Amino acid sequence: MANADYPGPILKLITLLRGLPGLGPRSAERMALWLMEQGPSRSGPLAQALGALAHEVAACDECGFFIERAQACELCDGTRRDRSLICVVERAADVLRLERSGAYKGLYHVLGGKLSPLDNVTPEDLRIEALRVRVAQGAAREVILAVGSDVEGEATAGYLADVLSGSGVAVSRLAQGLPAGGALDHVDELTLYQAMNGRRPLR
Amino acid sequence: MANADYPGPILKLITLLRGLPGLGPRSAERMALWLMEQGPSRSGPLAQALGALAHEVAACDECGFFIERAQACELCDGTRRDRSLICVVERAADVLRLERSGAYKGLYHVLGGKLSPLDNVTPEDLRIEALRVRVAQGAAREVILAVGSDVEGEATAGYLADVLSGSGVAVSRLAQGLPAGGALDHVDELTLYQAMNGRRPLR
Repeated sequence: MANADYPGPILKLITLLRGLPGLGPRSAERMALWLMEQGPSRSGPLAQALGALAHEVAACDECGFFIERAQACELCDGTRRDRSLICVVERAADVLRLERSGAYKGLYHVLGGKLSPLDNVTPEDLRIEALRVRVAQGAAREVILAVGSDVEGEATAGYLADVLSGSGVAVSRLAQGLPAGGALDHVDELTLYQAMNGRRPLR
Repeated sequence: MANADYPGPILKLITLLRGLPGLGPRSAERMALWLMEQGPSRSGPLAQALGALAHEVAACDECGFFIERAQACELCDGTRRDRSLICVVERAADVLRLERSGAYKGLYHVLGGKLSPLDNVTPEDLRIEALRVRVAQGAAREVILAVGSDVEGEATAGYLADVLSGSGVAVSRLAQGLPAGGALDHVDELTLYQAMNGRRPLR
């Protein structure tokens, strides 16, 4: 006889939970058992929320951020945003980080990732052609590339700058430098180098 | 205007995920967005597995471990297990840890927790009366208390030893191979094996 194991439905849930980002086998098992022990009052609403996700939420055709189906995109609303600016980000979550910073009131464009040949992410996998069309047809005067400053982010920024060259819009990149509250102690040398080169006059 | 936020269905999912053990707000948000970006091929099966949990899985009336509904409990199967031994554990997950250690082939009894006055867990909240009846009516000769070696585990073991005194069965405790303050959760299989083999009588 094989050793005893959890019933099939629990094993299946553990397997699915292990597929989630940031969950290892032990966490997935603990989570599944916790859900089982809590009973339907916990697993039921979670099941419903997950099931509703695909039906009730969609990506805005224009900016790529999430919207509730059949509702207008708040971020693309022409009366409230500065339509002369388009900020390009990798992921939908980046949109909210920028919104919460309060530093930006223009339009957004979610790429859906960054160029990464090692992971087989090519320009066709990202919303780059949609960006080109949007810039060609829209009222944008500046495109701000708010992609990450890692190797793939830099490559993506370079590629986008090429794609947008000749479109007549200014293309800019987020400043790189010291993080807020960061002591020089905790900053790597490349960041320090960039902070030094990007220094700006105080008065 | 308030800052933009995720659509309601995503916010609801994030809230529910934050209630899971081991998930903080950032992890819950990352997980919800990942599920959204992956589309229904990920969230659908997870929703189904969660929904199925309460319908398809139940606790065995006898040992308290999980069984698929309308199926016999493999661990209580009289032909395969040593019915003279009952091993008392706090949680269903502990059963599988002992099974995987290979040190034990008797019956199990899942308490459903441990005595903890601070958390309002009293004897009535645990399957203690069921254990008493089971010992009184069954063929057990020894009850092994495989609860944790933390304060509440020791208190639970002491209480159970009192309840079972006079029932004519030997009561033993896992050897103190368990690290002090350790729950069965965090113990490797070899340590569990040694603890099982070194179990000692309580009285």
